Amino acid sequence: MSVWIKNAMLCGEKTDVLIEKDTFSFVGKLKEGQSFTADRVINAEGMALLPAFYNLHCHAAMCLLRGYGEDMPLMSWLEKIWSKEATLTGEDIYNGTRLAVLEMIKSGTVFFADMYWYHQDVLRAVEDMGIRCNIGVTFMDSLGEKTIKDNLAFLDDYASYSNPLITFAPAPHAIYTCSGKLYMRCFDNAEKNNLYFQTHLSETVDEVGNCKKLHGGQTPTQYLHSLQVLNHRTIAAHCVHLTEEDAEILAETEVTAVHNPCSNMKLSSGAFDVPLIKRCGVHTALGTDGCSSNNNLSMIEEMKTAALLAKHAYKKADTLTAKEVMDWATVNGAKAYGINAGRIQQGMQADCLLVDMQNERLVPSWDIVSDMVYSADSSCVDTVICAGKVLMEHRRVKDQEEIVAKARAFVKK
Amino acid sequence: MSVWIKNAMLCGEKTDVLIEKDTFSFVGKLKEGQSFTADRVINAEGMALLPAFYNLHCHAAMCLLRGYGEDMPLMSWLEKIWSKEATLTGEDIYNGTRLAVLEMIKSGTVFFADMYWYHQDVLRAVEDMGIRCNIGVTFMDSLGEKTIKDNLAFLDDYASYSNPLITFAPAPHAIYTCSGKLYMRCFDNAEKNNLYFQTHLSETVDEVGNCKKLHGGQTPTQYLHSLQVLNHRTIAAHCVHLTEEDAEILAETEVTAVHNPCSNMKLSSGAFDVPLIKRCGVHTALGTDGCSSNNNLSMIEEMKTAALLAKHAYKKADTLTAKEVMDWATVNGAKAYGINAGRIQQGMQADCLLVDMQNERLVPSWDIVSDMVYSADSSCVDTVICAGKVLMEHRRVKDQEEIVAKARAFVKK
Repeated sequence: MSVWIKNAMLCGEKTDVLIEKDTFSFVGKLKEGQSFTADRVINAEGMALLPAFYNLHCHAAMCLLRGYGEDMPLMSWLEKIWSKEATLTGEDIYNGTRLAVLEMIKSGTVFFADMYWYHQDVLRAVEDMGIRCNIGVTFMDSLGEKTIKDNLAFLDDYASYSNPLITFAPAPHAIYTCSGKLYMRCFDNAEKNNLYFQTHLSETVDEVGNCKKLHGGQTPTQYLHSLQVLNHRTIAAHCVHLTEEDAEILAETEVTAVHNPCSNMKLSSGAFDVPLIKRCGVHTALGTDGCSSNNNLSMIEEMKTAALLAKHAYKKADTLTAKEVMDWATVNGAKAYGINAGRIQQGMQADCLLVDMQNERLVPSWDIVSDMVYSADSSCVDTVICAGKVLMEHRRVKDQEEIVAKARAFVKK
Repeated sequence: MSVWIKNAMLCGEKTDVLIEKDTFSFVGKLKEGQSFTADRVINAEGMALLPAFYNLHCHAAMCLLRGYGEDMPLMSWLEKIWSKEATLTGEDIYNGTRLAVLEMIKSGTVFFADMYWYHQDVLRAVEDMGIRCNIGVTFMDSLGEKTIKDNLAFLDDYASYSNPLITFAPAPHAIYTCSGKLYMRCFDNAEKNNLYFQTHLSETVDEVGNCKKLHGGQTPTQYLHSLQVLNHRTIAAHCVHLTEEDAEILAETEVTAVHNPCSNMKLSSGAFDVPLIKRCGVHTALGTDGCSSNNNLSMIEEMKTAALLAKHAYKKADTLTAKEVMDWATVNGAKAYGINAGRIQQGMQADCLLVDMQNERLVPSWDIVSDMVYSADSSCVDTVICAGKVLMEHRRVKDQEEIVAKARAFVKK
């Protein structure tokens, strides 16, 4: 399969792009009279070509709980959500994940790191939708030894899964739900199987305070470092409350810190310390978190919120620029999971968006990066290509009506 | 002209709505076999009927400067923006205002309070587009006596303008650009002509500090109160830095405080004190501010940002609920300008939206208010009705391609 994208604007220039299989094999300007032979030709006149988004932290199927239990204090909210979550079946997770992926594709996302339950049903959903995914298999001590063993065995079995768009990760939930021993078992599994390793880290002040009490004054980062479970394949969600030493540890061990600004604000968790992260050179990416604390999966909104929150919290207009946050949402996210993508360059994975420059939000167009971060919304995204496959064209995604109908039926149930 | 909206969901019930001229004349459920005779019938099957949005603070034509000069410290940014603004012509303002109104209609807004230059060109633009507007005629001492006199005379002439959707207001810019005398001349004009009165108030810490130095320790609110220019027709944008006494003054004088969270965050101005505002009972509405500090005009984004910022800044998940911020964006905004609108009720002005419940952002739909505030974006808005006239249907607005082309040409100029 090959795709020839004609006449797209890239960095201010009309550009031709040839995609062969999953890779950009040409990015440039054809000479007068030259052409490509391709299975599919997209005339991108009036469109800009941009990298697609990588959502580095998500609990996808929670979009079934979008708007269920709002504006409540944390503990009452958790009780309400957890009691509803306990009723979810594998089929619900399949339907919920498809709804989530539909929403992600519609807002330009081609990869997400998921951390949830029923990994077999998540796998079915993401394969149906054709998106990239790192499926985090969640661990907590409360699962019991049998489930923990089963999950570790599942990871052994799926470590070299045949679909190159899909990888797996052990995902010990957090230091307050997993013992040090469970963290180490998960990490050993990741090392043995060459997998990524997901966890929540330093999300709230309480988490940090309790950790210090339990672990001889160590912060969550210092504690996980002492367990030797931090390395370049560790993806740590939130990292809101870090000390200077914590940030240095994350930088040295090459952990990716994932910022989730909407969720952090909605749950009053605090402000990610952008100046500290930048000063220490921590590798950073962006995520939406789940829909019950956001309540959508738009990386476009997440970029804007990240930039605004940084400027607000650290009282400087250049704390986090549009260019920086766009990198977090694209190339940094891809890099964290070893995907050679995030830029429109020959030899890189063919993940990209066509955005409609006639959309009023992108006019008059002084700076497409700034417009995407601060002004755009999903209505600007016309076409989404993931690993050379067109997942959306002119805002149509395969089976979208059926996906919506199935997810809507969940409420009635 | 009459419009019959059939089968729309309103508060969870299938509802019929009849609009006659500019007013809802029936809101309820027709009996089996009953029907209306109407000039236009809209089948709203699968859509929810919601109030439209009222954008209480805007510099509309600044959307020509969207993305021009980003992520810069305040003073360098202002210099860059001001030098570009100085080149704008009346025709630019006409084109820029039409672009702004296109964007507002597409995201569900039917009214905006504008504060900018070339009021005659703003008037042309808003009349062409069919939207409601309060046209703020900007005053600063630096305009010189001739322009000030001309502007006051313009307000005398247009005080009872024939188009009921359009009103005017003297808009003394701020206490750091207008003398007390100029404020009083503007206020007298408003009183004499029964007009609303717009100003910026307490946007930054510096504004408050300088005011105290110049005016015997008075805050901007206390200073304007001492000039007797605060009453129920005064609309004060920003009100970020208020003391308890300030908030009490605003509540007693029945001023409307307009919160602009995106702009306040982007310019690192501070967080609107939601607990104080609520405790003192200040009438509050919502605005987007201009596109060079936002960078769009979506009230949907503004609602979410307002709720998230309040939860973040005041560390409580219920600091500002979805329901409260939706009221700020709808009924409170309408009330501030004496428009009998903001709810879908018989006898009220026929301003409303139809939102597409098949849009993935509004699924599975536990709570439509929460979904609109925290999850929706402009792609959810299908139809916009302003004073009984359909301004958008199925996301099409009259002349949208021409408006975009004209605004885009501005960059090339």
